[in-house]
Amino acid sequence: MTEIEVKKTQESLQDRLAQVIDLLQRQRVVEDLTHRQDGQHQERVDNLVHRQNLVELQRKLDDLHSADVAYILEALPVEDRLTVWQLVKAERDGDILLEVSDSVRETLIADMDDHELLAAAKEMDADELADLAPELPRDVVHELMEALDSQQRERVRSALSYDEDQVGALMDFEMVTIREDVSLEVVLRYLRRLKELPGHTDKLFVVDHDGVLKGVLPIKRLLVNDPDKQVSEVMANDPVSFHPDGDAYEAAQAFERYDLISSPVVDKNGKLIGRLTIDEMVDLIREESETEVLNMAGLREEEDIFASVWRSLRNRWSWLAVNLITAFIASRVIGLFEGSIEKLVALAALMPIVAGIGGNSGNQTITMIVRAMALDQVSTGNTSRLMRKELGVALVNGLIWGGVIGVVAYMLYHSWSLGVVMTAAMTLNLLLAAFMGVLIPMTLARLGRDPAMGSSVMITAMTDSGGFFIFLGLATLFLL
Amino acid sequence: MTEIEVKKTQESLQDRLAQVIDLLQRQRVVEDLTHRQDGQHQERVDNLVHRQNLVELQRKLDDLHSADVAYILEALPVEDRLTVWQLVKAERDGDILLEVSDSVRETLIADMDDHELLAAAKEMDADELADLAPELPRDVVHELMEALDSQQRERVRSALSYDEDQVGALMDFEMVTIREDVSLEVVLRYLRRLKELPGHTDKLFVVDHDGVLKGVLPIKRLLVNDPDKQVSEVMANDPVSFHPDGDAYEAAQAFERYDLISSPVVDKNGKLIGRLTIDEMVDLIREESETEVLNMAGLREEEDIFASVWRSLRNRWSWLAVNLITAFIASRVIGLFEGSIEKLVALAALMPIVAGIGGNSGNQTITMIVRAMALDQVSTGNTSRLMRKELGVALVNGLIWGGVIGVVAYMLYHSWSLGVVMTAAMTLNLLLAAFMGVLIPMTLARLGRDPAMGSSVMITAMTDSGGFFIFLGLATLFLL
Repeated sequence: MTEIEVKKTQESLQDRLAQVIDLLQRQRVVEDLTHRQDGQHQERVDNLVHRQNLVELQRKLDDLHSADVAYILEALPVEDRLTVWQLVKAERDGDILLEVSDSVRETLIADMDDHELLAAAKEMDADELADLAPELPRDVVHELMEALDSQQRERVRSALSYDEDQVGALMDFEMVTIREDVSLEVVLRYLRRLKELPGHTDKLFVVDHDGVLKGVLPIKRLLVNDPDKQVSEVMANDPVSFHPDGDAYEAAQAFERYDLISSPVVDKNGKLIGRLTIDEMVDLIREESETEVLNMAGLREEEDIFASVWRSLRNRWSWLAVNLITAFIASRVIGLFEGSIEKLVALAALMPIVAGIGGNSGNQTITMIVRAMALDQVSTGNTSRLMRKELGVALVNGLIWGGVIGVVAYMLYHSWSLGVVMTAAMTLNLLLAAFMGVLIPMTLARLGRDPAMGSSVMITAMTDSGGFFIFLGLATLFLL
Repeated sequence: MTEIEVKKTQESLQDRLAQVIDLLQRQRVVEDLTHRQDGQHQERVDNLVHRQNLVELQRKLDDLHSADVAYILEALPVEDRLTVWQLVKAERDGDILLEVSDSVRETLIADMDDHELLAAAKEMDADELADLAPELPRDVVHELMEALDSQQRERVRSALSYDEDQVGALMDFEMVTIREDVSLEVVLRYLRRLKELPGHTDKLFVVDHDGVLKGVLPIKRLLVNDPDKQVSEVMANDPVSFHPDGDAYEAAQAFERYDLISSPVVDKNGKLIGRLTIDEMVDLIREESETEVLNMAGLREEEDIFASVWRSLRNRWSWLAVNLITAFIASRVIGLFEGSIEKLVALAALMPIVAGIGGNSGNQTITMIVRAMALDQVSTGNTSRLMRKELGVALVNGLIWGGVIGVVAYMLYHSWSLGVVMTAAMTLNLLLAAFMGVLIPMTLARLGRDPAMGSSVMITAMTDSGGFFIFLGLATLFLL
């Protein structure tokens, strides 16, 4: 990717978006007029306005960083998005495609012909190409691979061979390597000959003749040390490095923990094969936490906010279907006690309170646990302690809030025993919520699944069915 | 902060944590024995084992990066945490205090006397001191401020004067500044005299005699350009810069968008006063997305997973109380229709399905919208379009899933009209969920509140009360 200078941001991104939307709207008005009026003179004037508008929009876009254009594309509905996309200079297509979200990228790629795609992809580095390849038409990928030299082709193949959650899928190949038996002066002269250094170069990689990583030379040290010193005297011998089949998210956590900017990736024999950089790791950290939020709400993936209704349905239906089944089960639990409800209809009005508070409390517990698990703070060694704490919180909450609602139930229906049943049911359901709130994510993790996955739907299912059963069961035993 | 070299991570962090827990457990066994057996000989042996254990634990801790020690402290229950904390070398106390989460930091500070706190804080830079100051005892802060030179004191004061969500609270003061009218050769010699460069130095700041920022000199350019060139020829004139009273999260987004590593902070007159670095921004990005998750679940703040039951209650009670009120309202809605339920008890069994699916679907919508708002993709210009899309999704979902559940209701209770009411109620409640799912976060944002705040509790309240009202109302009108 070529380096684009970022201009001082006098106006906020939102302002720029607003300006683009404004220009697009003016554009549409002009187009509508052109369609309506058929007078020849009128048409010519409109075409002029039309063109002026587009020129202004294009100038605006040219001033923006690719990442900002990407942001604007994401915030626009599909037809406006494609209007803007056609105005973007062809040589920036590649950069922008790499910046937008997956779902938006799909809409952009669908709008490009093979020729444009080839042109955009030709500007890319091997790792960027590998990111994009799975979404490109097969013959475009084929043609691109043909055009690469053998080293580049090998790199694309290798990057494609890793899962997207492996280090290998995120590494790039823009490394500056040096030997350990030269002086810093030689290194400085070598760098000057390179004309440009890759982005995020905070260290040079020291390798031997076989390409095995011997250490790293932080640029900071290169700058402050005597140029006559040898690289081997100044380099760090035992740097943090990663393996291509390692977990990418763990690498991101290491970047965060040790404040890294770039880090070497080595194979089993210690041979340097690539590097990771903080920008990819930041994206990953962002994505992971987004996935957590989405999964907890039962969404399968990030959704382009202007996705079609049909696409949105596909994203959401699976957890809704699960929820439908769990709601049906809860309904059948109530069905078991229809006789009791017929005798005491107050039960029907009170039962959702027991279920609802249980659901809320369970969601709090499960959110806490999922978060602690994401930070690796939960181990088998402390499960029982956590469980005890959560049950303790649930017990106190149940007695306090259950007590309050018990008194309210008494006041509404003038039955002490109904109040007591209410309090007892609330307490038991909160205990169930705490128990399941710890157990569900732990079990999912043990099964190798994402502990956040639909956890909210599942805990709510438990506290609904459980709450109805506990409350109606106690009522049937003690009130009727 | 002094630079600590990160050792190659042969063993994972979890492994290290497990080892520490193991050592602590052995330790406890020894202590128990010592307490139980009073024989003098026995005691001496135990003391030896005791000391060996502690020595081994200490050696383990000394090997670890401060960030790793922080992680281990966070993952340990309070008493073990303090045992480990006492073994950590005093000169690392400061670094570690800066790494741990707020709630864990409180427990550690509570365990230190003023003398230890002073020693730990003396190692810190002005910006770090400002981070910690609000949590230190007042007289410790006073003594620390006395010990600083006037420039440092001014910096701490200035950092403390900003809100924690402002750029000024996150900037540091470790900048390397140069003049524009010198050659790169002079700059290189100047750097060599500094002996050490601050972390995350990817650019030098070019200022004039009044300290006004003229541009930045990326280290990359310093290295590849001819040393005889002037700084002014090579520097970037118009770099991204921030104001101390700007929004910190927007700065973090800019870092993410433009792949920045460090960036100057200037006051209104363009005078350089500090810099932002990617490590602080990554922490902020992480915190923001965590806050989003916690707020959606109705938790006030991050919770130390080993917090006391009492502390957890304080964190959770407020939204539970809100939920109690909304559940009570839902219950009263049902109360309105007790007569209908008495006549047709099937309604009691079916009504939670309508409410539950509505809640799930509403949570999906609100999660989507809150996310899009966090990414600035939602503006007043596209609200109506979003609303139409969400209502469309709700309508289709309602007809499909409502239809399914309508058929099920018919099969259970052999009443076509009940099935139709069920389908209609589901569809209407999903439409309500979509409407509220867009409206609630938009309204919160317009009121200047966090759109994620308790949004889950609120949408569930709407879909519960609304669902009961719609279903029981339709049933009363058409079935009875």
